[in-house]
Amino acid sequence: MAMNFCSHCGAQALEFRIPEGDLKPRYVCGQCGYIHYQNPKSVVGTLSRWQDQVLLCRRAIEPRYGLWTLPAGFLEIGESIGEGARRETQEEANAAVVLDRLYTVITLPKIGQLHLMFLADLPQPEFSAGAESLEVRLFDEEDIPWEAMAFRTVSRTLRCFFRDRLQIRQKALSEFPLRVSVL
Amino acid sequence: MAMNFCSHCGAQALEFRIPEGDLKPRYVCGQCGYIHYQNPKSVVGTLSRWQDQVLLCRRAIEPRYGLWTLPAGFLEIGESIGEGARRETQEEANAAVVLDRLYTVITLPKIGQLHLMFLADLPQPEFSAGAESLEVRLFDEEDIPWEAMAFRTVSRTLRCFFRDRLQIRQKALSEFPLRVSVL
Repeated sequence: MAMNFCSHCGAQALEFRIPEGDLKPRYVCGQCGYIHYQNPKSVVGTLSRWQDQVLLCRRAIEPRYGLWTLPAGFLEIGESIGEGARRETQEEANAAVVLDRLYTVITLPKIGQLHLMFLADLPQPEFSAGAESLEVRLFDEEDIPWEAMAFRTVSRTLRCFFRDRLQIRQKALSEFPLRVSVL
Repeated sequence: MAMNFCSHCGAQALEFRIPEGDLKPRYVCGQCGYIHYQNPKSVVGTLSRWQDQVLLCRRAIEPRYGLWTLPAGFLEIGESIGEGARRETQEEANAAVVLDRLYTVITLPKIGQLHLMFLADLPQPEFSAGAESLEVRLFDEEDIPWEAMAFRTVSRTLRCFFRDRLQIRQKALSEFPLRVSVL
């Protein structure tokens, strides 16, 4: 986020420059000297399964209104990544899922985000659209609306999942491995 | 960080309250309405190996001046978690390491941090103290200064490593698994 005023002293004397001993430019207050570090944010969510199907939400908010996503959102201070992933799934899909394992860790350096997606299971096929979703549905692999995906991290996580699931069924993999990548 | 002024409009009219449609309190500007979200930060680093030894740095900066740590620091916008882990190892230990795999993912909900540590290897036993380190050394397992560790995430990562390494040597594990936990 571009800063207009120093949140520490209120001065409009912000400079975007490399502080002494640092390597990257930061917002530095020309009045009080406060250095405003900005760091990547973490997004946590789930790829939740019911039998052979996976749970997707159609977004009721911008960005990507109307497109499909895995339930996910910004990690909050005060929660673990697992708690955050379950909370987002509850909020967006009204689904109380059981986490399996951390599955994809995808960095998006340009926009300063880190996406951590868990595999999870629905104990029952019970879910509905939360406030941020237009609809929530279970999809078979062949019905996934690939052309209407909200985010590349979602497409990548789903593609990894279907590929790994096939490998597991063919006994080429014994379990879902962690998939770390950059987008 | 506690905010004193709105970084958007400069007003000192900040309220710490739950915005409409939200579930958690945020700094909201009473003048321009801007909601200042604060999110956990990510720390990335390496557990770097040379033969049977691991690389530790003694901190030359606060917090935890004089105590031992794995080379690690805040992930920056513009880099992947792997790039950040290698950069921190270069900066703190002047060591150009080869990343193996993401190994521990530890959330610290109370302080709003997410620590991601990679296993890595030193191609040669070449390293030296960077600006933020008093000294950098290779340690055998039996010489680890457990009582002088800077951070619990570092102790936990090292304990996981020595336990898993033993299991691998005893053929009880085939490789280092991802270790996800909360502290």
